This record gives sequence, structure tokens and C-alpha cells, in this order.
Amino acid sequence: MKNAEKYARGYYMPPVKCMKWAEKDYIDHAPAWCSVDLRDGNQALIIPMSLEEKLEFFKKLVDIGFKEIEIGFPAASETEYEFCRTLIEKNMIPDDVTIQVLTQSREHIIKKTFEAIDGAKHAVVHLYNSTSVAQREQVFRKSKEEIIKIATTGAELCKEYKKHANGHITFEYSPESFTGTEPEFAAEICNAVIDIWEPDADNKVIINLPVTVEMSLPHVYAQQVEYMCETLHNRENLIISLHPHNDRGTGIADTELGLLAGGDRVEGTCFGNGERTGNVDIVTLALNMYTHGVEPNLDFTDLPSLIELYERVTRMKVYDRQPYSGSLVYAAFSGSHQDAIAKGMKWREEKDDKHWTCPYLPIDPHDVGREYEGDVIRINSQSGKGGIGYILEQQYGYDLPKAMREDFGYKVKDISDKAHKELSRSEVHQIFKNTYLNINTPIDIHEAHYTQKADDLIGASIKAVINGKTVECSADGNGRLDAVANALTAEIGMEINVDTYTEHALERKTTSEACSYVGINVNGKIFWGVGRHSDIIVSSVKALVSAINNAMNK
Amino acid sequence: MKNAEKYARGYYMPPVKCMKWAEKDYIDHAPAWCSVDLRDGNQALIIPMSLEEKLEFFKKLVDIGFKEIEIGFPAASETEYEFCRTLIEKNMIPDDVTIQVLTQSREHIIKKTFEAIDGAKHAVVHLYNSTSVAQREQVFRKSKEEIIKIATTGAELCKEYKKHANGHITFEYSPESFTGTEPEFAAEICNAVIDIWEPDADNKVIINLPVTVEMSLPHVYAQQVEYMCETLHNRENLIISLHPHNDRGTGIADTELGLLAGGDRVEGTCFGNGERTGNVDIVTLALNMYTHGVEPNLDFTDLPSLIELYERVTRMKVYDRQPYSGSLVYAAFSGSHQDAIAKGMKWREEKDDKHWTCPYLPIDPHDVGREYEGDVIRINSQSGKGGIGYILEQQYGYDLPKAMREDFGYKVKDISDKAHKELSRSEVHQIFKNTYLNINTPIDIHEAHYTQKADDLIGASIKAVINGKTVECSADGNGRLDAVANALTAEIGMEINVDTYTEHALERKTTSEACSYVGINVNGKIFWGVGRHSDIIVSSVKALVSAINNAMNK
Repeated sequence: MKNAEKYARGYYMPPVKCMKWAEKDYIDHAPAWCSVDLRDGNQALIIPMSLEEKLEFFKKLVDIGFKEIEIGFPAASETEYEFCRTLIEKNMIPDDVTIQVLTQSREHIIKKTFEAIDGAKHAVVHLYNSTSVAQREQVFRKSKEEIIKIATTGAELCKEYKKHANGHITFEYSPESFTGTEPEFAAEICNAVIDIWEPDADNKVIINLPVTVEMSLPHVYAQQVEYMCETLHNRENLIISLHPHNDRGTGIADTELGLLAGGDRVEGTCFGNGERTGNVDIVTLALNMYTHGVEPNLDFTDLPSLIELYERVTRMKVYDRQPYSGSLVYAAFSGSHQDAIAKGMKWREEKDDKHWTCPYLPIDPHDVGREYEGDVIRINSQSGKGGIGYILEQQYGYDLPKAMREDFGYKVKDISDKAHKELSRSEVHQIFKNTYLNINTPIDIHEAHYTQKADDLIGASIKAVINGKTVECSADGNGRLDAVANALTAEIGMEINVDTYTEHALERKTTSEACSYVGINVNGKIFWGVGRHSDIIVSSVKALVSAINNAMNK
Repeated sequence: MKNAEKYARGYYMPPVKCMKWAEKDYIDHAPAWCSVDLRDGNQALIIPMSLEEKLEFFKKLVDIGFKEIEIGFPAASETEYEFCRTLIEKNMIPDDVTIQVLTQSREHIIKKTFEAIDGAKHAVVHLYNSTSVAQREQVFRKSKEEIIKIATTGAELCKEYKKHANGHITFEYSPESFTGTEPEFAAEICNAVIDIWEPDADNKVIINLPVTVEMSLPHVYAQQVEYMCETLHNRENLIISLHPHNDRGTGIADTELGLLAGGDRVEGTCFGNGERTGNVDIVTLALNMYTHGVEPNLDFTDLPSLIELYERVTRMKVYDRQPYSGSLVYAAFSGSHQDAIAKGMKWREEKDDKHWTCPYLPIDPHDVGREYEGDVIRINSQSGKGGIGYILEQQYGYDLPKAMREDFGYKVKDISDKAHKELSRSEVHQIFKNTYLNINTPIDIHEAHYTQKADDLIGASIKAVINGKTVECSADGNGRLDAVANALTAEIGMEINVDTYTEHALERKTTSEACSYVGINVNGKIFWGVGRHSDIIVSSVKALVSAINNAMNK
């Protein structure tokens, strides 16, 4: 790049060291969650949501368990005013849910904001003004004192209007562009507002510290939050709220470290919708907690239905690699990952199905409405024996011998590589059947009779079609398979040694079939065949003949 | 959620406190970058790249400035072997670029790996085995000693094969699944490998600490990295490499804090492609540094061309909100953001065009090949006067009076809201022209003559068509506009007071036109009109008449 000297770090460190947060290594309880999907999320959409879409989304947010929902800036937009009134007048806000509305510090806007929430049982009035050096200098062209005056004027007005309001009203103040503000000044302006609002145990005040634009590494934000927590007046009656955006890709980290640093509450959106790079993704935050064994107090057990609604009403797409939610985040294409997952799943069944510790899967896909089938083990040219074996076993009931898995793995890899595409499970199944199962050319056995000649000697008489010609032959062996192999050996002039034989029942609802796997050694090379039949003897002979046919067709 | 008790934290804290990294607040120099797009990125694609696609991507990575590029796992896949041979045999690797190949700790694989890189001037042989508790227990079912043995056997073999290799070979070792490994054990296994490889100043060894699966908050990983840096043998001859994934959405933070903790090198991909939630996004990391004034040693000045190539060869889509790269990350739809950006841009022109401090835009879009037009100020029902004024001024040359911007802002908002869509710049321009410019019904002035009657007295005689009827009228005023207004007042019976009048030249290549803005007060309400004409007098009268027509049409 050229021009690096054009940039400088635009954040400010607290005047004292604030590193107590780093003593903790995880978040041990859920914060209060506030969804800003309908405000910050909505205002970043190419096509903002319609009234009906907002109502539908609001209901879903309530169902998920959000107790605070910012619904707009009603004094700035007729649509948002109307949405607010509809929620209140149609009685759509449950008693334990608080709506939140945004307002600037201007009297006619504050007045209209209070009109908008008239009749709501619980509401947060969220007052903000911008405090960063850049905004003071470039946008407002005002001194620090004048910027504080904007905030205190607004705070006084809110206090005045609250006196005549019905319903329970909580105040929130945001020094907007906090991350570009000197922490000392941010504390000064917040304290000026706090001193006007005089919070107490029954009327706490929310102080929101937005990462309006990300400007620093996340541990810098944590230090700023800790500084604020230690510097603000009346801390015990404050709710410290975090509102990160994601310009540097560290919105989740800002929030998590900010919570360690004293944050009590998080404002964010589902899937991180929001201005530019988005607000922080509450789904990820909540499930990060969940996978640490901490109940997040939000219910994402049916993520697919939330995704469906979200994509429909926002006209955005959840990113394929979005943590927990993306279409590809449970997918393992690579052989070694598939193998580890397959073994991890098996271990889980055998040793401990109470806890989730499966390699490469930080969450059980079932816990968020995703499926092992289709979502996890996926087959392309990068895949290996573990994944393919897992699919055949889990979905189709075939438990292949280990060496046969490897043989089949190479076949599938090769087909996917040449076709240059992912293979579906049914395609894998089809390749398996075409390659190994009940292969009956050039040899097809029509009849086989066995005679027990001695304890370890069995005679087999066979009627078969070989290359279109009907043949009868017989031989002895130390078992049925061996006898059939010997009979055919003589007929086709190929030395056959049975190397591997395994068998299991294939359960299907009303019938049970036997499935047999035979590996034969022909001149040092192994060929495989599979037989399926209701009779176990027939099944094993079909497997043997399939293997011989594969050797002959080579 | 139910089932939180099913999960537990799967990471391990270092046995001693490792918090020196937190003394630093930013990364002051670029690490060594290694692209793993063609390996870790490729193996996570639904359809892996073809040979030709990989070659094209490789060239682009070289152009961007990557000096180390992991190109595959040549012993595990014929395609990757062929790709490696093609690069070497076709002499496509610049002398200052090192290719990197992955290998497991098995002799036939190591042997084939060395065959694959035969003829390369510089290569990294990257040996790995999995070390986490879950993998040891569930996948390998081996003791710690046995797991160390896998690593040391591979290290010995690599050392042996290197003796006979031409070209300069560097070794890398990864304790795969490092984040689920006890730090003490990770240090033990790395030290065992280091002791075999005996790095010195000319043959440094890379120790890679992968976040194979993210399991903790990012500051925990930083502590693990710092612990490793302090515990590993022969630290001065080691290159500590970081390889984060993004399962908890904190891959960028892991890397940044890990670099503060002693990381020298980063393995990642463009746009964060890679297994599941992806590898860490090197574009974001590099531009995060850049916007802190630090040269990243990678050139992303033409991000759009990289995006085009990436989307074509990977068949993935760069997420709309991906930091720096996404289609929406420079977009401001909201009125207050647009206003601040417009003012910030103006301030920049006037006060300091050397430094970039514009509100809401952490990077100058021009620095990465993006445009202000189309990318930044975008218009829908959330937009306001600032953005609309900015578009009219920057793109079409109209500098509207402040109060008129507000009037126009409401009109555009309303149209977008009702049409339920984003408006293009040309649509905004069209609405502006239709609403204000040279409006000539019901009044159209055909002729106007002026007489200077005294110092502050001008007479106007007008020939006009009003509602289809030709009219002649005249009056005096303290200026031309005033005189025309007075003449028309008498004719149409409407009290008109000129409230605002501004004017500027509109530069077009060969001609220059005057553009006039008139706001008139009719019964306390302001109506606006705009006139354009090569003659400034005609332009101002057209503006006046447009305003009057708007008042009459109301």
C-alpha cells in the first residue's frame, strides 16, 4: 500500500491502567440483551423493512427471548412513528418486554418521542449526541463545553417530559462515537447527564458505550469500558451497555472483553446486520456463551426459521461462514476432519453422550436445528475414507471393513475430482452400489448346493453363467465361501484367496437382510465385493462373486 | 437454550500469568504473511479449484506481495501434487517467494512430499500432528508419549530427507488443535521437535500455533501464545506463526492479540475463506494495520480485482459486510451519517487533505479501489438532507441552500419510502429537476425588461403566459427579483416575499451557466425554485418563477 502515513490511530487510551478485566477468562453469566435489528439494522438496509415486516420480526425477537427491543427513531421518520404506535395500540408488546426509542437532544424531537411512546408500559428513551474529536471538530464545529451542553439540555428535557408520561420510562444516554472520544471527556459528559437524571435502585440509568466505528484492538476498548465503570458517578445504579460495530472485524471480541470489563448489557443484531460492517452479532455472542456451558437466556434452537425470516424481511443473506448460522460452518469436506468427526461421534456414542466434545464441531448442530446429514460430512475431491464410511454407515447402514473404506474413498475422490463437483449422499450411495454391490457380470451364480463332507470340509456345486455361457462346476473348501472360490478358480483360471470377510444385519423396518463384505487377493492386489440378501449364505456368495467380477473386470 | 450443561470450556490456561502483551495497544510492524488460500481455503470449498484456477490465484497472491504461499498437501492428492510440480517445472515461483507444503508424520507421505518440492528454490515443509485432549482421546486413542512420538518420528524423517534435498528448505511444525491442548504439553511436543531440528540463525524453524477450532476468548489465546514464546527452546531462532480460524467470530482478534504476544508470522486467507467459519482474513488484518498508519507489506489498492478473481475461482461470495471488502461497508444510508460524512469531506478539503479522519469511514475508499460515488452516500427512506445535498453538489454541481436541502430531503425520503426502494443518483437528480428546476407552469415568463429608476429602485416589465393566458404586467422593486415578484403578485393575487436567494456558477466543460436558488415565503410557508441559464438575471428569474409555480401548484 502507499499512503500509510495518511492514517493515525484515532482512539485514546484511558489515563490510568485498566486491566482488571483480563483476570477473567470467560463470561460467566448472560448480559441483558437489547436487539437493535429494527433500528440500527433496519437503517443499514438497501430497502428498509415495511411495517408488516417489522411487526413480524418484532414477534420473532420476542419469541427468541429479547426483553429489550429498540424499535426506531420515531421522531425522525413517519414510518417509525407509525410502527411504534401500532405496537402500542394493538397491544403487541408483552408486559415483560421494553421497547426502546432513539432521540436527539432537540426539544421538538424529544416531545414527539414521548408522544410516540405514550401508552407503552415500559420504554427506554435513548438520548445520544456525538462526542468524538472528529465529530466535534468537523461536523459540529463546537467546543467540549458546547457538546456537553447539547447532552445536558437533552437530559433536562427528557427529565421534564418524563414527569408527565405514563408507563415506566428508563433513560439511556450514549456518547455516540465513544471510541473516538477521549475517555476523560466521555466520562465527564456521561457524569453530567447522570447527575441530572439521578438514578437510583428503582430507576437505573443505562449508559451505552458505542463502538460507533471500530478504531482499536479489542483490548483497548475493554480498558476504556473498565475506565468508564470506575469513573462514572453512582455506578451501582447504572447499567453499562455495549454497542459494538465491526469495522475491524473484532465486534465480537470488543463485546466479550467489554463484558469482562464491566458491561452489563449488549445492543446488537441477529447475524450482525447493521451500518457498514454491521452491529455485533448477538447469535454468535449467545452461542459462544452456550458452548462454554453458560445459559445465554436467548433461544436459538431453531436457527433455520430465524434465518428464513431474516433473509426474507431484510433482503440480506446470512454469510456462508457466519459463526453458528452460515450454511458451511458445520461442513467438513477434508478427509482428516471427516475422519476425526466420525471417530468423535462414535466415541460419544460409546463413552459419553452427556457432553459435547466432538473434534472440529464446537457446537452440536442438533442444538441449533441443523442436521448431521447434509450439514456436516460433505463429499468432494478433498474428502476421505472417514467421511464416506460415516455416511454409508449412518445413512444407509453399511459398516465397511476399514481397508475397504480406503478403497472406496479413492474411488469417490476420483469421481468428484473429474466431475469437478460435490457429490450428494445419494450419489455416494449410488457409486457404492454400482461399484461393489451384487455385481453379476461376467459371473452370475444361478444355483449353489453345499454338502458338509467333514468337520472342516464343505463341498459346493454351482450352476453359473460366465460370460454368457452356462457352466456347472464343483469343488471342496474349508467353508462355503472357500469351496465356491475354489470351484470358480478352476473355471476361470484365476488364483483367488479370500483375504477379508465380514458380515452384519441390515435393519429395515419389516425385514432384515444380511450384508456381506469380501476382499479377495489376486496376485497381491485386493478387490472388494458386497452382497445383500435375506439369506446370509447367499449374501456372502454374492459378495465373493462381486469381488471376483471386479477383479475380472479390471 | 436447553442443554448448556452439555458444554464445558475446552481450552487450558497457561500455568503462569502471561499478560505482557497487553502493555501494547497496537501492532507496530507487519508480520510475515503466509497465504493458505490454495490449501486450507481450497479444501473448504464445495468445488475445489482446478489446476488453472489455482495457477491464476497463485499469480495474484504473488502480485499482492505474499512471500510465502502454502500450495497444498501434495502427498495426499494427485491434483495437489500436479499443481506443485507445475509451479516448479514451469518456473512460476519468483526467487523471493517460498512455497509451503503440508505433510503428516508418515514416511511414505514425507518421502512423496520431498519428491513434490524437488527443484523448488525455497520451500517450507510443514509437519503437523494433532495434540488436543479430544483428538488424543477420541481419534488417536493414544497417550501423550505416543503423540510426541508421532511428532518426533516425523521430525527425524524430515531432517533425514532434507539432507538429500536441493533448494533451501525451512521446517514448520504445528501442534494441530493447539487451542484444545494443555499449553505445557504443546510446549513439550514443540520442544521435542525443535531439539531434533536444531534451528540456528540461518535455518530458523517455524512453530505454528493454530487456532484449529476457536475455543476461548481472544485474550486467552494471547496468553497461550506468550506462554509458548517464553517456554520454547531456542526462541531467537524460531518464527512463531499464528493460524487462527473463526468459530467464535474472533479470528481477527486472536491474531492481533497473538501478534502482540510474540507472533512473528500469520497464516490466513483472503476474505477469510477456509474450513467452516473460515481462516483469518488477511485483507482485514493488513488494512487494520494500514488504518493505524502501519505499512502492511501487502498491496490491496485494487481490492475489486482481487474480489472478482476470488469469487470466480472459489465460487464463494465476499460477504456484503466483510470489513473493507464487502459491497455495503462504505455505504451510508442514514441521514445523520451522510451529513457527518459530507461535512467531514468538506472539512478535509478545507483544512487537511493529508490525513484521513472522516467520520464513519475508517479508511479512504479510494485507497482500496472503491469510489465515493455509488459506494458511500446511498439514498433510501432512511436518508437525509446531508447525503442528498452531497450527491447534488459532488456529482451534479448544485450547491443548495441549507434550508432547501432539508425540503428536498423530505421529498426524496417520501418517494423512496413509498416506492419501497433505493434511489440511484440519477433518480435523485431527476427528482430534483422535476421538483425545482425551471418550472414553467402555470407561469411562464416570455420576456422581461428592466429599468434602473433610482439607486435602489428597479422597474420590471414582463410578458408572461399564466394558465395559458398571455399577460403583460410591470412593477417596481428594490432589485430585479423583487420587481418581478411584485409584478406577478398583482397579477396572481398571492403575497410573495423573497426569503432566500443564492447563486453560483455551474461549470461544464466549454460553457458556464449560472444556477440560482430562490426561497419565497407565502403565508409563512417556504417554497423553493431553481433556475439555470447562461445569463445570471434570467437564471434568477427562472428560480423565482419556479418557486412561485411550486407555491401555486401546492
